[in-house]
Amino acid sequence: MKQLLEDLKTVRLDAESNRVVILDQTYLPGSIVYRSLGTPEEIYEAIYRLRVRGAPAIGVTAAYGIYVCCRALEHESFTDFYDAFSQIRDYLASSRPTAVNLTAALERMERCVLEYRDCSIGDILDRMKEEAHNIRNEDAVSCRRIGEYALSLLRPGMGLLTHCNAGHLATSEYGTALAPVYLGQERGYAFQVFADETRPLLQGARLTAFELQHAGVDVTLICDNMASMVMHNGWVQAVVVGCDRIATNGDAANKIGTSGVAILARHYGIPFYVLGPTSTIDMRCPSGDAITIEERSSEEITEMWYTERMAPAEVKVFNPAFDVTPAELITAIITEKGIARAPYRKTFESWGL
Amino acid sequence: MKQLLEDLKTVRLDAESNRVVILDQTYLPGSIVYRSLGTPEEIYEAIYRLRVRGAPAIGVTAAYGIYVCCRALEHESFTDFYDAFSQIRDYLASSRPTAVNLTAALERMERCVLEYRDCSIGDILDRMKEEAHNIRNEDAVSCRRIGEYALSLLRPGMGLLTHCNAGHLATSEYGTALAPVYLGQERGYAFQVFADETRPLLQGARLTAFELQHAGVDVTLICDNMASMVMHNGWVQAVVVGCDRIATNGDAANKIGTSGVAILARHYGIPFYVLGPTSTIDMRCPSGDAITIEERSSEEITEMWYTERMAPAEVKVFNPAFDVTPAELITAIITEKGIARAPYRKTFESWGL
Repeated sequence: MKQLLEDLKTVRLDAESNRVVILDQTYLPGSIVYRSLGTPEEIYEAIYRLRVRGAPAIGVTAAYGIYVCCRALEHESFTDFYDAFSQIRDYLASSRPTAVNLTAALERMERCVLEYRDCSIGDILDRMKEEAHNIRNEDAVSCRRIGEYALSLLRPGMGLLTHCNAGHLATSEYGTALAPVYLGQERGYAFQVFADETRPLLQGARLTAFELQHAGVDVTLICDNMASMVMHNGWVQAVVVGCDRIATNGDAANKIGTSGVAILARHYGIPFYVLGPTSTIDMRCPSGDAITIEERSSEEITEMWYTERMAPAEVKVFNPAFDVTPAELITAIITEKGIARAPYRKTFESWGL
Repeated sequence: MKQLLEDLKTVRLDAESNRVVILDQTYLPGSIVYRSLGTPEEIYEAIYRLRVRGAPAIGVTAAYGIYVCCRALEHESFTDFYDAFSQIRDYLASSRPTAVNLTAALERMERCVLEYRDCSIGDILDRMKEEAHNIRNEDAVSCRRIGEYALSLLRPGMGLLTHCNAGHLATSEYGTALAPVYLGQERGYAFQVFADETRPLLQGARLTAFELQHAGVDVTLICDNMASMVMHNGWVQAVVVGCDRIATNGDAANKIGTSGVAILARHYGIPFYVLGPTSTIDMRCPSGDAITIEERSSEEITEMWYTERMAPAEVKVFNPAFDVTPAELITAIITEKGIARAPYRKTFESWGL
């Protein structure tokens, strides 16, 4: 794990050049390519194109991103500065609709700007930089805490199934769903991980299998439709997934296919855990019905990655990027503040959310 | 549908050249390529490589295949002829282990050979040709009957979800799972079909979406992991799938992922129908546990179709080609002899199997 953290930096600020540097995940696992972003358009494009993805990593990128964009402005009055800030905020917030961490990070940056509105622009920028670093570092701390809480529910040698990527590449350090895997590895737990490849964008094959293998974790890649057989074979003792937005009733939006995995886990009697920082819990959202589900282009299914077209031309396609797993299929939601079980709202409120 | 049958011939005998001509499905949907097969090696390769696939189509190919191979022999004694026949039979039977139709067709050809053992080799060959045609034509008739029985369970305007390809391209004419779709289309039922793309070999995207679109059926392509959301949205009123081998207790082996779809259907309260000819029912097989599940190479998941490697090198992969759906998740098994419901063995026996 130490090696993984040293070798790959998901998102970082290069203060000297005033750029955000991301590991471009669209090139993985073939090539390690870092991309430096300085304009709102570059940051928007990187999030929209999933060069950087994973709810926490998107939040960190947006925080650093709005900081470097504002640093590049040359406004002298707060009003002009704040107008420009607001425009960039709205623009970046529109890059992807489902993950709440994106808007949460931008709102936090805005509160910082407003808090220091009576200071010089230079001072405001310094505070913004500090706040973006805080968001990043809190994410890293949260991931470890999530890992500790999750590990308390797991036993050495267990088989774990995960969907999509909620690991190092989706966050600042240990990941969310994969945090217990990495912590467990450090403590000799010897988990066996099954990674759903996660169509259409293959985050499981390209990212989860890649980072777990890089860290020396025992990982087996499967197609999404093989999860049922792997569970039937008795190879999975717990499912661990990340999340993009959690409603107050505990409904959780995550990568498309997650709800199906939850239904399989229920059928086979396997606990299903959703792991994420409390910044993913949207207290303004009462239930999963209120979560906007991003639909993406049909080419992701019919053409992307392939040497040739793999579906008939002009075929109708449905390509939702997320689905909602209802709270009743979730065994527990594991955050940096602890382990929540139904009824979720009560626990979320007890955490001061 | 008529156009589809005219435009595409899944398997046929070219008696003049003494070759089996198959539509090479590995080129679909990009190109329509027919491949002519004359030697045991060519036939084995076409089945093993899934150039021709679908349990009934494999059976028909094997029947025509062993006929053309035997026709090319120059033995004069029955003993020599039968020895050669047996070698070819064993070789072709080993091309794929799960679909029972392959061995069933070869055994039927063998019974034909043995029945006419006292005739001249020339006469035996003529009988073999007739028997292979019978297998093909009975399959076509079975498909229509399956379609009629299935249609009696469906209503116009329904949304149907299917997995893999059990259509025209998997059989001689109307398909099994898709037979009610084609018959329904002829009668104005206006079904809306959702086709799982079916990783790793994409039979749903490349074949099902292709043949339904070609026939003018309303079809929407989805990734396997989107079936849960499509069902959640209320868009599916029945699931129709084919099968590769059915045990006497009603457990059904079919393309990997089928058991997961059945679990989703149960969760959402949607009927789950397995459609296939009675030649798919293996009365020697008491339950799904006894069915051999073919495992295929990891490259199908990590490299095939792609412009570049989509998973880390050397990653461990589990790639089963089929799974078993337990009888208790199956609403009904629909064959050319009628509709079976639990307990299945009783009905199968009443059909004289």
